[in-house]
Amino acid sequence: MRLNVLCACSAGGTDSHGLCEYMTAGIGIGATLTATGDRLSKNRDTSHSGGLLDRIPVIPVPSVDAASEVSPYQPGQVAVSRSTAVMKYGFPSLSNIKSRESYVTSYDPRNRTAAWVIEQLNAETVTGTSDRKFCDFKEDDSVHVYHRSSNVDYKGSGFDRGHLAAAANHKWSQKAMDDTFYLSNVSPQNPHLNQNAWNNLEKYCRSLTKHYQNVFVCTGPLYLPRQEPDGKMYVKYQVLGKNHVAVPTHFFKVVILEKPRGDVELRSYVMPNMPVDDKIPLERFLVPIESIERASGLLFVPNIMKRTSSLKAITAG
Amino acid sequence: MRLNVLCACSAGGTDSHGLCEYMTAGIGIGATLTATGDRLSKNRDTSHSGGLLDRIPVIPVPSVDAASEVSPYQPGQVAVSRSTAVMKYGFPSLSNIKSRESYVTSYDPRNRTAAWVIEQLNAETVTGTSDRKFCDFKEDDSVHVYHRSSNVDYKGSGFDRGHLAAAANHKWSQKAMDDTFYLSNVSPQNPHLNQNAWNNLEKYCRSLTKHYQNVFVCTGPLYLPRQEPDGKMYVKYQVLGKNHVAVPTHFFKVVILEKPRGDVELRSYVMPNMPVDDKIPLERFLVPIESIERASGLLFVPNIMKRTSSLKAITAG
Repeated sequence: MRLNVLCACSAGGTDSHGLCEYMTAGIGIGATLTATGDRLSKNRDTSHSGGLLDRIPVIPVPSVDAASEVSPYQPGQVAVSRSTAVMKYGFPSLSNIKSRESYVTSYDPRNRTAAWVIEQLNAETVTGTSDRKFCDFKEDDSVHVYHRSSNVDYKGSGFDRGHLAAAANHKWSQKAMDDTFYLSNVSPQNPHLNQNAWNNLEKYCRSLTKHYQNVFVCTGPLYLPRQEPDGKMYVKYQVLGKNHVAVPTHFFKVVILEKPRGDVELRSYVMPNMPVDDKIPLERFLVPIESIERASGLLFVPNIMKRTSSLKAITAG
Repeated sequence: MRLNVLCACSAGGTDSHGLCEYMTAGIGIGATLTATGDRLSKNRDTSHSGGLLDRIPVIPVPSVDAASEVSPYQPGQVAVSRSTAVMKYGFPSLSNIKSRESYVTSYDPRNRTAAWVIEQLNAETVTGTSDRKFCDFKEDDSVHVYHRSSNVDYKGSGFDRGHLAAAANHKWSQKAMDDTFYLSNVSPQNPHLNQNAWNNLEKYCRSLTKHYQNVFVCTGPLYLPRQEPDGKMYVKYQVLGKNHVAVPTHFFKVVILEKPRGDVELRSYVMPNMPVDDKIPLERFLVPIESIERASGLLFVPNIMKRTSSLKAITAG
């Protein structure tokens, strides 16, 4: 059946998102309705006792342990059981998780882009004959049309369609490379950043596969506040096109590095979504992981600590 | 063990969130690290086939049907099985869901407030002897300390601690009223709005219990874009205190009304987070539900439509 919508705004008309204009005009707010967000799960959040859902398993959050039991992780494995492998250090949130050939992601339907994307790289994934000339950016039709970005949103915006999971990380499989071209794996990115400093960071991640057994890379957008002249802190970011795709103020990359003997290193980077001089050494963009955890609403270290007693976070080279 | 953090920023120092100052200064971005967001689950999102998690049930999302089978919903029931009752029309997202005595909520760890809160009201819940003089606003210690708001964040901010699930909706139980005082059920709200027009909307929702069998109320913040003089659209909102608690630009309330014969009505409201003349009739704040769905990253209608073939959305009185 059709939803019966009665609209009798006295001031008439609706904007492109159906918000009655009288509301924005009459109440003095020039905003149109679009874009929201919610977030993250942690085991202890959902295990809260009592309340309306008491004793009903609303979202039975599987632990990383449980998942690993399905198919125990083996160092060096790639295609056989990538599913388990990429989960080895858990996920930084448990919201709206989706699995693709090359990555696992959590989608942010308010901002029309991923909240994070995790990939596993090693010597095998970064080599192969896959070619991006066979790939096209495409809408993710697994996302509701209200919350999906389209190629049209980016057109003429001045922003690149910046991969979160990078295409060149997945030369091992044409399908895996193709999957990086879903627009849900893309954020509006400054073209200079995308093609220079950020590209260098991606190349650097791939180069790490020469020295480490496995390289887990988690990438995502940030929307950081800044102080304005009135002394107050504000988050401000542009939105693109009719779907109001959020333009992140910054991007993060958290890199979990596995040595053959099981030692784990952590490196976490943040770059602003603006031209960055690519002569600045990448180490200058290292930040404490706690900063990304606070800013993103995500958690990395608690998951990793369940998996190793030998974690070393490198925040400057 | 302690996390071994090496920090050797040449420009020295970190801000209150640990972001190396050289990064903000050197790269020319005055932002400090804080606040991010991700979002929502839909059944079809998690049922996507193939990919890294193929055949591993990462987040087995229970359908509302399944939950209802645990304890079938009976019209008019309140305390006996509120858990199932409040789920009757599903949830607008499946991210980070938490159950309390008086409501079910989805927390947004990036913005340090709920993404939405759902309550079930009827003649029994809005009456009783509970008193808010026995209640105090309190931190929600089920939320990680990095993503939690505190009373100090609000102090001197000029904003009220605005309830999402209203205290007075839950006179039926002191515990239920107490639970509305978790700061995770609170957003920074303009004091005039909180104490006048918004309060009137809350009272109106309670008054509906006289005419309807059950009143399901879902409340949440919105962060809406507006056009700036450069012709581009921006989302901009203040953040409060050291935890950078997001100040919503607007609030929504979606009201699902059940008549004794099973007919369902839907009314959805948006108010800006600013003083609103309380002489403006509440019907003027009715908006199409689609507007809230697009803006919030949430979905209401698809869930409701599974439960009724008789839905009427009233968007203006």
